[in-house]
Amino acid sequence: MSRIEAKMNELGLILPQPPILPPGVRLPFATVNIRGKRAFISGHGPQEEDGSLSAPFGRLGDTISVEEGYALARKTGLSILASLKRELGDLDRISGWGKLFGMVNSTPDFTEQPAVINGCSDLILEVFGPDTGRHARSAVGMAALPFGAGIAVEIEGEVLID
Amino acid sequence: MSRIEAKMNELGLILPQPPILPPGVRLPFATVNIRGKRAFISGHGPQEEDGSLSAPFGRLGDTISVEEGYALARKTGLSILASLKRELGDLDRISGWGKLFGMVNSTPDFTEQPAVINGCSDLILEVFGPDTGRHARSAVGMAALPFGAGIAVEIEGEVLID
Amino acid sequence: MSRIEAKMNELGLILPQPPILPPGVRLPFATVNIRGKRAFISGHGPQEEDGSLSAPFGRLGDTISVEEGYALARKTGLSILASLKRELGDLDRISGWGKLFGMVNSTPDFTEQPAVINGCSDLILEVFGPDTGRHARSAVGMAALPFGAGIAVEIEGEVLID
Repeated sequence: MSRIEAKMNELGLILPQPPILPPGVRLPFATVNIRGKRAFISGHGPQEEDGSLSAPFGRLGDTISVEEGYALARKTGLSILASLKRELGDLDRISGWGKLFGMVNSTPDFTEQPAVINGCSDLILEVFGPDTGRHARSAVGMAALPFGAGIAVEIEGEVLID
Repeated sequence: MSRIEAKMNELGLILPQPPILPPGVRLPFATVNIRGKRAFISGHGPQEEDGSLSAPFGRLGDTISVEEGYALARKTGLSILASLKRELGDLDRISGWGKLFGMVNSTPDFTEQPAVINGCSDLILEVFGPDTGRHARSAVGMAALPFGAGIAVEIEGEVLID
Repeated sequence: MSRIEAKMNELGLILPQPPILPPGVRLPFATVNIRGKRAFISGHGPQEEDGSLSAPFGRLGDTISVEEGYALARKTGLSILASLKRELGDLDRISGWGKLFGMVNSTPDFTEQPAVINGCSDLILEVFGPDTGRHARSAVGMAALPFGAGIAVEIEGEVLID
């Protein structure tokens, strides 16, 4: 078993199935796009284990708490890892994380985007450790995000691969 | 004639002239910035063939329909291709698309950003095909975008070059 | 003395101390993440010389003028240069700027994001000159940004290094 998957088993982490999207949605792009030693990660939302998008939908600062947002960002991280595994075959091929761009569906007065996106950063650091998992990041407030009443968190990024 | 330009002629696509900006706007950066084998693409808006910014301006979810948004995203893609051609000389130098970051001027309850940005993704795939045109993508809702009453769509990205 | 620091002295520019964050904020990522010949720059906000976040907080289009926004974007650029110097040791290691992604805390009707983010672009070009300082850029309106009542400007980016 690969080193990273052994670590994920140890942490009790389970990767979600491929995304189940709302009817009529067409996404003509790659969830992960490999070019040479780089893997571009498309914007991902939080998923349940069966692949469905995770509730609650809507905005932080409105009906969703920071704690719920943190959990959704962690699920978004698992969704990203699932896409990377499907594309790379083995997560051990990741030689280093480059960046995460963390987008939080926010009311204009919500300012705790970093505490929300920490859910994804913490996951990456737990699974990959401080060297390979080290990443640059932004965590900012979006006016709106796609799907249903709007996913609460969306994260894109880039990793380097061997 | 280059392969990509022959394909564009076949599809009846015409690249716009260089941007005509509103009076007083100063943009002290490169629309496309080449560093080694990478071309960073600045945020582009939709343009008409003469280079002027495309109406309608404003927000999706308000006065602009998804169909209009799709057409504006396609025009934004043509604007990007025009900048790439001016900088690269020949679009055949593009060895692969890396990513698109699609920004839609959105009311807080508008959630169909992917259907809008598909206008650009579809264009890239029609022109470059499924391998070279393959790209990662996000499509998200912005509180505001620049110029006049606000362009409805802005897209930035990165391509790899030979 | 390094070439870039001599230039900064000549321009009278002073880099801020490391960020002083509001109590309880935890940021488990790198302000600058080096991977090979690339340095990913996390989202930065404007700082005073002592490292504290710069007022005014809030939104452009509301209580903050374009002129104030320009000054905040310039301070954000200095904050980025301070992080790069701490990580790289010497700013002369920067072989070229890749991109800036400029985020402006904006009311829905504010559309002068480019005039705000010019504060950072102008700084980079003054310090690094037109070749090394050349960069791609977007300047867009966010619904919300982190810290206090919300920093007015946040900028992330990428530079290439030797």
